Amino acid sequence: MSTTTEPRVIRVALAGCGVVGAALVRLLRDEGPRIEAVHGVRLEVTRILVRDVERPRPAPLRHSLLTADVDAFLAADADLVVEAMGGLDPALRIARATLAAGRRFVTANKALVAAHGAELAAIARRTGAGFDFEAAVGGGVPVVRALREALAGAGVRAVRGILNGTSNFILTRVSEGMTYDAALADAQRAGFAEADPSRDLDGRDAADKAAILAWLAFGLDPARAQVERRGILPDPDRLARDAAAFGGVPRLIAECVERPGGIAVVVEPVVVTRDSLFGATRDEENAIVVETRWNGRIRLAGPGAGGPPTASALLGDMIHPAPRVPACGGPEDSAPVLAVPDDRSHRWIVSVLGESPDSADSRGILAAAGIGIDEWHRGGRELRIRTAPCPREAIARAVAGLEAAGGKPRLARYEGTC
Amino acid sequence: MSTTTEPRVIRVALAGCGVVGAALVRLLRDEGPRIEAVHGVRLEVTRILVRDVERPRPAPLRHSLLTADVDAFLAADADLVVEAMGGLDPALRIARATLAAGRRFVTANKALVAAHGAELAAIARRTGAGFDFEAAVGGGVPVVRALREALAGAGVRAVRGILNGTSNFILTRVSEGMTYDAALADAQRAGFAEADPSRDLDGRDAADKAAILAWLAFGLDPARAQVERRGILPDPDRLARDAAAFGGVPRLIAECVERPGGIAVVVEPVVVTRDSLFGATRDEENAIVVETRWNGRIRLAGPGAGGPPTASALLGDMIHPAPRVPACGGPEDSAPVLAVPDDRSHRWIVSVLGESPDSADSRGILAAAGIGIDEWHRGGRELRIRTAPCPREAIARAVAGLEAAGGKPRLARYEGTC
Repeated sequence: MSTTTEPRVIRVALAGCGVVGAALVRLLRDEGPRIEAVHGVRLEVTRILVRDVERPRPAPLRHSLLTADVDAFLAADADLVVEAMGGLDPALRIARATLAAGRRFVTANKALVAAHGAELAAIARRTGAGFDFEAAVGGGVPVVRALREALAGAGVRAVRGILNGTSNFILTRVSEGMTYDAALADAQRAGFAEADPSRDLDGRDAADKAAILAWLAFGLDPARAQVERRGILPDPDRLARDAAAFGGVPRLIAECVERPGGIAVVVEPVVVTRDSLFGATRDEENAIVVETRWNGRIRLAGPGAGGPPTASALLGDMIHPAPRVPACGGPEDSAPVLAVPDDRSHRWIVSVLGESPDSADSRGILAAAGIGIDEWHRGGRELRIRTAPCPREAIARAVAGLEAAGGKPRLARYEGTC
Repeated sequence: MSTTTEPRVIRVALAGCGVVGAALVRLLRDEGPRIEAVHGVRLEVTRILVRDVERPRPAPLRHSLLTADVDAFLAADADLVVEAMGGLDPALRIARATLAAGRRFVTANKALVAAHGAELAAIARRTGAGFDFEAAVGGGVPVVRALREALAGAGVRAVRGILNGTSNFILTRVSEGMTYDAALADAQRAGFAEADPSRDLDGRDAADKAAILAWLAFGLDPARAQVERRGILPDPDRLARDAAAFGGVPRLIAECVERPGGIAVVVEPVVVTRDSLFGATRDEENAIVVETRWNGRIRLAGPGAGGPPTASALLGDMIHPAPRVPACGGPEDSAPVLAVPDDRSHRWIVSVLGESPDSADSRGILAAAGIGIDEWHRGGRELRIRTAPCPREAIARAVAGLEAAGGKPRLARYEGTC
């Protein structure tokens, strides 16, 4: 709590000066005077860790600040370490050393927080250090702080959202007729997809983020979230055609939901109507809905990827730490919050390739599994079926049966407005 | 910063036990165990200030907690005072005494924060007390904390939104053909409008909220915001018909915008398309867009009125105070942030009653004021004109001319998608 209007100086050591780190350096330069005037804080970068000190940087910085030596970086004169490298090595070592020394640690690293968040939070609680990670989920959309603070008393029942900009960019474009290969190349050119986008496309990136949200909303240890996960591969364009047959568009939705006995965490393709919140979320944008017992449905949306939005989220955490490090499931002697399977029933869209014209086999397999059929269409080589609501394990068994019958089935959940 | 996982006990004195206060008591009872488990905080109500201790309350509370004596209330054994009474008396006295004693003060009172926020923040900084007011703007939509914290480094250029649930409820209903009187009665029955809704309908409530947002985003003293204000009266149904003639719906939009030399704050009816974010914001919902230099357009939406959402916002502040009390315009020796007029050009919709068929007069008056006409329609007794972009003072002069000519003009800004 500031007790004077003189600006407080915060010395910052920055780990990583790629797309996000360089954007952060530019933000600090351009927004510094406004941040000082409105928020009473002056941020000074004292050291920057990079892999190669000789590489040219797209940021205005003094070369003498750079080091490639992690030990020298950790010895820097800094109140706060901000990490924008990604990956676990050396990010985990930096996080542990920073928090153990009682210094604030701010990160954009969802893989780090999903795998080691509870351990790092325990260190932070022990030393009294701040541990903040708004930039790890939702890009520039302020969902992390909202769950940690403003919505802390809202009685959250579920959090669901579009949390991966890369897969959303591709699903938007293939729904407009672009091929998957062209859409991926566009995403990479625009800087939204890595050279290796597999963690985005197979849902692991969104699963890490969903696990973090389950931690913040419900106290579930993110490393134990047991995410039910399917990505948009192998054929996002087929997913788009299947969705279009029922008047919708596909979106990769991540969610964590309160269920009897615990929290279910799911990442999977979901078909929604075009004019729903998620259907209207295009390209690299993210959108999140928080369903609450007392505060209705809170919606948050904005840029989900890119250097400046991520740097902006880091900067918010650097200016003001969140008031409390999140814990897992309350007092140490109480029972932990459990991850449970998703026991809800859903409507599903199943498409099958190369069926005979009467397609009795596929519909027969669904019927034998006790699954009702609401609507079906034949188009070209594809038979597309929308089921009545049924549990996840029933549709999984039926899909295995369709697979065995050679139908190359493709599955998406159907939600309509979502 | 919590350094242990044992719950921290916070003793709460509650001022006001009407719709919001009673909802807060119910939330505390129902969400208490979850708040303790996830957020490590146990809230205990030690005193409740009411106007009449004998009146029955729609909340589960011990009668012995109640008092009607402000002095006895202020002497309560409490770490935090939460104010849900509204108005300035005795809210201002309670706020000053609480903060001066170094105790946390949490409020839903937008009139109090707009008129006395800077003074109260100065007391809070002096004593080190927390001063939080998420519930004062946006109902349950977490815009206050977002501007104070997560978006602190985003480089905010403008904040605009639907901030008054009552007027939005009425505008939604009259756009669907309901009369104004019936819509107002519905809003009052649903608990979204006061017995005297004049502050909602004439835009003063939204102006208070816009001034608070200008404080948080730009450091403008909210008491000096000089809001350019027009409400939805006298004839919201005519506003809806005028909007419909150009394919839109009217919304009461509040905004604060960075302009050369300072901040312009405006509250006025704006015509938007039905499928825009604001057009799709219905009934008592609120929606806010934060335009930034670095983080794109952040959108927040959710319930803007009602006891439980407001109580939920109060509760978030009670669980975790914001990390810093906001200041006005930085270090004490720097120049203050100034309120400036809105010098932008806008398109306007002007309707005129009782014109002669050729309506040369009205169009001539606009032309004489140098205002271009993009489109016009005649319907029944009304002539409706959409202008080319022109400054606010030009359209104001023209409207005065139309008024003098007896045309009973009605004005709304036209934005299309917004």
